[in-house]
Amino acid sequence: MRILTLNGPNLNRLGKRDASHYGVLTLEGIERALREAYPEDDFRFLQSNHEGELIDAIQAAEKDRDGVLINPGGYAHTSVAMRDALAECRLPKVEVHLSHLANREGFRQTLVTAQACDGYVSGFREKSYLAGVYLLKLLAEEGSVRT
Amino acid sequence: MRILTLNGPNLNRLGKRDASHYGVLTLEGIERALREAYPEDDFRFLQSNHEGELIDAIQAAEKDRDGVLINPGGYAHTSVAMRDALAECRLPKVEVHLSHLANREGFRQTLVTAQACDGYVSGFREKSYLAGVYLLKLLAEEGSVRT
Amino acid sequence: MRILTLNGPNLNRLGKRDASHYGVLTLEGIERALREAYPEDDFRFLQSNHEGELIDAIQAAEKDRDGVLINPGGYAHTSVAMRDALAECRLPKVEVHLSHLANREGFRQTLVTAQACDGYVSGFREKSYLAGVYLLKLLAEEGSVRT
Amino acid sequence: MRILTLNGPNLNRLGKRDASHYGVLTLEGIERALREAYPEDDFRFLQSNHEGELIDAIQAAEKDRDGVLINPGGYAHTSVAMRDALAECRLPKVEVHLSHLANREGFRQTLVTAQACDGYVSGFREKSYLAGVYLLKLLAEEGSVRT
Amino acid sequence: MRILTLNGPNLNRLGKRDASHYGVLTLEGIERALREAYPEDDFRFLQSNHEGELIDAIQAAEKDRDGVLINPGGYAHTSVAMRDALAECRLPKVEVHLSHLANREGFRQTLVTAQACDGYVSGFREKSYLAGVYLLKLLAEEGSVRT
Amino acid sequence: MRILTLNGPNLNRLGKRDASHYGVLTLEGIERALREAYPEDDFRFLQSNHEGELIDAIQAAEKDRDGVLINPGGYAHTSVAMRDALAECRLPKVEVHLSHLANREGFRQTLVTAQACDGYVSGFREKSYLAGVYLLKLLAEEGSVRT
Amino acid sequence: MRILTLNGPNLNRLGKRDASHYGVLTLEGIERALREAYPEDDFRFLQSNHEGELIDAIQAAEKDRDGVLINPGGYAHTSVAMRDALAECRLPKVEVHLSHLANREGFRQTLVTAQACDGYVSGFREKSYLAGVYLLKLLAEEGSVRT
Amino acid sequence: MRILTLNGPNLNRLGKRDASHYGVLTLEGIERALREAYPEDDFRFLQSNHEGELIDAIQAAEKDRDGVLINPGGYAHTSVAMRDALAECRLPKVEVHLSHLANREGFRQTLVTAQACDGYVSGFREKSYLAGVYLLKLLAEEGSVRT
Amino acid sequence: MRILTLNGPNLNRLGKRDASHYGVLTLEGIERALREAYPEDDFRFLQSNHEGELIDAIQAAEKDRDGVLINPGGYAHTSVAMRDALAECRLPKVEVHLSHLANREGFRQTLVTAQACDGYVSGFREKSYLAGVYLLKLLAEEGSVRT
Amino acid sequence: MRILTLNGPNLNRLGKRDASHYGVLTLEGIERALREAYPEDDFRFLQSNHEGELIDAIQAAEKDRDGVLINPGGYAHTSVAMRDALAECRLPKVEVHLSHLANREGFRQTLVTAQACDGYVSGFREKSYLAGVYLLKLLAEEGSVRT
Amino acid sequence: MRILTLNGPNLNRLGKRDASHYGVLTLEGIERALREAYPEDDFRFLQSNHEGELIDAIQAAEKDRDGVLINPGGYAHTSVAMRDALAECRLPKVEVHLSHLANREGFRQTLVTAQACDGYVSGFREKSYLAGVYLLKLLAEEGSVRT
Amino acid sequence: MRILTLNGPNLNRLGKRDASHYGVLTLEGIERALREAYPEDDFRFLQSNHEGELIDAIQAAEKDRDGVLINPGGYAHTSVAMRDALAECRLPKVEVHLSHLANREGFRQTLVTAQACDGYVSGFREKSYLAGVYLLKLLAEEGSVRT
Repeated sequence: MRILTLNGPNLNRLGKRDASHYGVLTLEGIERALREAYPEDDFRFLQSNHEGELIDAIQAAEKDRDGVLINPGGYAHTSVAMRDALAECRLPKVEVHLSHLANREGFRQTLVTAQACDGYVSGFREKSYLAGVYLLKLLAEEGSVRT
Repeated sequence: MRILTLNGPNLNRLGKRDASHYGVLTLEGIERALREAYPEDDFRFLQSNHEGELIDAIQAAEKDRDGVLINPGGYAHTSVAMRDALAECRLPKVEVHLSHLANREGFRQTLVTAQACDGYVSGFREKSYLAGVYLLKLLAEEGSVRT
Repeated sequence: MRILTLNGPNLNRLGKRDASHYGVLTLEGIERALREAYPEDDFRFLQSNHEGELIDAIQAAEKDRDGVLINPGGYAHTSVAMRDALAECRLPKVEVHLSHLANREGFRQTLVTAQACDGYVSGFREKSYLAGVYLLKLLAEEGSVRT
Repeated sequence: MRILTLNGPNLNRLGKRDASHYGVLTLEGIERALREAYPEDDFRFLQSNHEGELIDAIQAAEKDRDGVLINPGGYAHTSVAMRDALAECRLPKVEVHLSHLANREGFRQTLVTAQACDGYVSGFREKSYLAGVYLLKLLAEEGSVRT
Repeated sequence: MRILTLNGPNLNRLGKRDASHYGVLTLEGIERALREAYPEDDFRFLQSNHEGELIDAIQAAEKDRDGVLINPGGYAHTSVAMRDALAECRLPKVEVHLSHLANREGFRQTLVTAQACDGYVSGFREKSYLAGVYLLKLLAEEGSVRT
Repeated sequence: MRILTLNGPNLNRLGKRDASHYGVLTLEGIERALREAYPEDDFRFLQSNHEGELIDAIQAAEKDRDGVLINPGGYAHTSVAMRDALAECRLPKVEVHLSHLANREGFRQTLVTAQACDGYVSGFREKSYLAGVYLLKLLAEEGSVRT
Repeated sequence: MRILTLNGPNLNRLGKRDASHYGVLTLEGIERALREAYPEDDFRFLQSNHEGELIDAIQAAEKDRDGVLINPGGYAHTSVAMRDALAECRLPKVEVHLSHLANREGFRQTLVTAQACDGYVSGFREKSYLAGVYLLKLLAEEGSVRT
Repeated sequence: MRILTLNGPNLNRLGKRDASHYGVLTLEGIERALREAYPEDDFRFLQSNHEGELIDAIQAAEKDRDGVLINPGGYAHTSVAMRDALAECRLPKVEVHLSHLANREGFRQTLVTAQACDGYVSGFREKSYLAGVYLLKLLAEEGSVRT
Repeated sequence: MRILTLNGPNLNRLGKRDASHYGVLTLEGIERALREAYPEDDFRFLQSNHEGELIDAIQAAEKDRDGVLINPGGYAHTSVAMRDALAECRLPKVEVHLSHLANREGFRQTLVTAQACDGYVSGFREKSYLAGVYLLKLLAEEGSVRT
Repeated sequence: MRILTLNGPNLNRLGKRDASHYGVLTLEGIERALREAYPEDDFRFLQSNHEGELIDAIQAAEKDRDGVLINPGGYAHTSVAMRDALAECRLPKVEVHLSHLANREGFRQTLVTAQACDGYVSGFREKSYLAGVYLLKLLAEEGSVRT
Repeated sequence: MRILTLNGPNLNRLGKRDASHYGVLTLEGIERALREAYPEDDFRFLQSNHEGELIDAIQAAEKDRDGVLINPGGYAHTSVAMRDALAECRLPKVEVHLSHLANREGFRQTLVTAQACDGYVSGFREKSYLAGVYLLKLLAEEGSVRT
Repeated sequence: MRILTLNGPNLNRLGKRDASHYGVLTLEGIERALREAYPEDDFRFLQSNHEGELIDAIQAAEKDRDGVLINPGGYAHTSVAMRDALAECRLPKVEVHLSHLANREGFRQTLVTAQACDGYVSGFREKSYLAGVYLLKLLAEEGSVRT
């Protein structure tokens, strides 16, 4: 399965500093864990701090990807534009969050982008990504795409 | 792994009627899918319409279970009492929802019980349960329990 | 017509104490009035203080009942679980309230269970029940069931 | 029984167009159904799009009417002035709605005029009117008037 | 001084029924009291249940009146249209209320029309009208008009 | 094209007084501008301060009009009844506002009647009317009517 | 009539600076105007910036005063303690405001102390005080005290 | 004095796990402390996780109890049904909470059941129970029952 | 035990007037009841209408008092400053209210000062004070002070 | 007239997918329609998914453009930064929306950028753009620029 | 420069107890730091727990001060009266806060008094005062006073 | 000291147009003023309209900067992503605003990015920047960094 893994702002800094929400994870570590757990799949990783770049990538995904795994970072709570891009993309889409959003600040309770994905997984650190791929594959098997 | 699978009110009726939110799933079908996907694990299934029975089961789980997979149904949004029971239970706990809560009625946006679980998965129908077990096993491997 | 008449918590105490909202009505008096007004119909009465028992009864109603007359008492304003049970039940369903909810406390203004009934009647004391049966019979004549 | 049946704005157009909320009902059909179901009663029908005319009619009702059956249409949700007129009228008063208000737009959830009636019936289409008369007659028998 | 005294919906019924908020006042009694207290002034009284008629009267007032004393009744809390009419009228304008609005229902706390008057007097029953004229005369002496 | 141009309360006073929101426009000036810009079209102008009269006119429009251009004035923000009338009218309908509503008082931000029109234009003074007719003609060409 | 005239914080500075809300009034000017308009009455004036002193004065008023005219200044919107003191005082009480509160900042819309007075007058500058005394005298004539 | 001591959901687990809110208290320890401090009184203890059982117990209390000491646990914040049961029970009723509710989560600030008790005590751990009995005895001496 | 008993604004007037909330209690009666019930303790009583005086007393309490019993009156709901003073005082502190706050006006539901006490007792009239001292003594025995 | 036509995120995908809100329109089709309807005008089209690029373009527009026609897409509801850029740009500015915003999701009701334009047009699909140019030309004729 | 440094309630206790928000600062230490950093300026320090005293001081400041540095403590969030006093004072005024208000309790987010100052500084402990004087001097140089 | 001075969207236009909020300041003028006031410090200035570029710059600052002075412009109120970047940066960080935010539009009252800085300064125009550097230097001296 060809999977686009999108990471939003500041996830490039993951594990470099504060371990309180995310432990000692790094984005590289997450990518390595995904490849190890799913060695036969084709992953493309993109991290960007720029909202427009993320939207460009979502728009381009249908061309050569079979599914989208997205952790929108801070844009998850504010970006109507990313939500609109996701809504139009006809691939299986799973939103994942490292931390347990329901137990964090109020402004992280609003999920704007998730509304345009098939579903979301929150709270299991790097395991959220692993479960995200697990779900993308189940969705792809089923041939079902959220419309 | 010995897993308690709790299903709240009305999930016994699943798939018997309205297919708009849940497809043609039945609770029996979900249980069968879990056993097929995870043939070596020990599942105990409990469905109840009674809030108190669900709380009793959560309190008893630590004695002979290694993890809790819970779909609290309608109680997910109102039961402070179930939340307090979950908060006290020292097992890995994953809350799952068949439907995509973020796209349903406003009163389903408040997640009371999920706050006391390790995390939650929403929107993938029966696949939410499968991912829930997948996550419980990852949590158990790690030996980590949310405190 | 075979009618299930469900009464929620505390309605067994009706008329035993405080007459300010409900007058000197008793639940027995209401049942007697229903039988007198509709002598040819088959009434089954159930009162319970337990949310789960009420849900069980709603789920079982389709087997041998033609309509549901429900006064959910305090659960009318909070029970998502009862609402989900009613939503799935394919019988004519009328919710009735003895008192005039629109003129009582704020927390009684939220009608959770009524949303899953065909409609509701509020404010006419025991006459709300009589009108409820009157409406159930009209709904049954029509053969229409809210879906 | 001499009954004033008041219909607010746009109810003259009932059944002429959109059948989604009200089916193929016409106001004439409702009036005919009332006369058929209650052939011995004296009905006076008034429909008006003018708030002031409806208030005038409510003020005049006590002179030669025994009860008021009112469907305030869109004014149900905004008219403090109609509410004050109803509050002062010492006849049995039943507010009826064709559609199930609790399942419609948010601005239809505020019931201003109903607060000054004995109670209200919502959701049963033309049967709401029939139940309204049924209730007016019960209220009149009892000789009770909401004060 | 030539004064237009406008009374909104239901004030024609004043004192005919419920004495709890307004005592045994009648609109005629208030008018008589105004004429007695201010025998040299020219009062024109208008009561209407029709929002449009009240707006017409406000628009016409400048032609032959020196001030407006208005009790908008229930329209005080909802009528943007009357507010706009008052805002455009270049006479001294005093809004009066018989009852003490700050101690009544929540929906009577929003003062829409008063925002377009010079000020308002609330809570003194018929004396609110007397003080209203007293203030109109002071405003007229001063030659000041709110703009 | 036969166009009904409806103007709500106080628009008859336009340009007579306060120029801060509307400049030196008069309703007559707007009507003249419309006729000049669209000399081949058949305009019928109606201004009324009475909510009921405006509803009557909307209900009658289908008989001999091809489109409705409406500036509901203050009723735009409060009239559920006018909204219901517009929703039922099967002509192209454009709501126009002289002033820039998004930059005025909070109570002018709620657009009740616009929800039942094809769309709305706000902020361009008399040019809002001109653009409204321009749009009505485009809508009519297309033969499309909002349903 | 023996009248206690209470003025809250900053009213001692009245007219010394900013004329936008209050014109060129001074507190001394208001007192002089009151004495001129009501030469036979006995006025006692008290201005204080201290909430406790104002409460002490309200508590002592019954001993030798016949009415209370109060402009609570900024405390009008926050002081539950002054409200409780006024509620207990059995004299006619009129609250007055120089400025038109309904047209000022949001935090000035909450009237805490006015709820415990007979009524209130707002928006007429020094004339609010004059009308306040006018009303106190009418209240005293009537012998009525708000309870 | 014959006292019913009701404990809601999860209080059977008290002191078994998390000591952050309640210290090392156990329910048995609290019961022992009550018997030691009040050796001459007749205590009946009931703990239940089932809302309906608690309501049943409240309804039955009048038969052979002189007072109700209730810690409703999580139901304190949601159960309209328990509130209605308490409101009807004519015994002295004191609600107690081990923890200081005003300093905990937002959803614990709503006190539904306490509104139907004589009063409440919060924040003193096991001492809240002791003070609750102390107050029940004072209420009983006085012979006063909240109505 | 040396106890500072603080009473906020208007409590000096207790029992002099309105008996609806507080019965025929006087502050002197409460003080007498405290001394009778706890004859061996050293009470210092202070009542003040001045917020600053109450803060001064709280700041001075640690010097020669062993506990603080405080009824902040109307300041309980608004005084951030008193809250800060209490938070800094290292003595056992119990806040008491004569009336049942949860059943009074909305503005009395916000408890600002109580958040900085060990806990609070509400609704038992003079018995709230007695229970307050009972709790202070239990707190002192335990040697525990809220930090 | 030299017109800058700005299109925000995802409008490049217009008409490629979901026709429910926008029909079968493409951005190219809209541009062609504009050129056809206004053959003598000079259009420059810019579409970008990047907020910063849109701001750059707004800042540069004054140099060689005579008006701005902007459809900000998802940024219309969140971008304070674009609003500030528009506010500073001294050209005629018209905001257009293809869909009828007042009938879509709640988060599309907040118009941040429109507040800094001359006005806005919503709901007429490609015709919104045509009317936007029509209005820009009228604004330019008038020589009026919103300040 | 002659500077009035006003400190509100509880700031006299600064540094005596809880170091979590303010470190080991004392008010004396802050005053000493100010004199050391600005040896040529004339500081007058006033701390008071009494709202009225602070208002008196603000009112008197113009006589012999050139600027006001104010830390209103708890009154910053509630005192409309202090705000009115500051608004009237024609000196440069800087409000300072030791702690980072945006990261504290919700009731500390409302800044009532700051609205009437030139600006505010928050979060830098004693350095907020130093920056406050730095800004007062810059404001004075400029000769600009906020009006 | 090596200081990164970040300026968000539209600050490049400062002083070019509207002088109502910011006077005749230009960004160049502010930079010159900073260099003049602090000639020995090393300033790097960056202005960008792109959210992602600002985040990139914050992430890179630790490498060769000793402090961050940031005016986020419109992003201050919406950017969770910039907030997360600032939270992770371990340098002293001061947010500055030219205008007095507390006196501007409601949407400028939410400070998202400031929560992740050491503190903020608002309202003093270019002097806010000067005070920002003054504070950065004090923070650096102290060696304290907000964590």
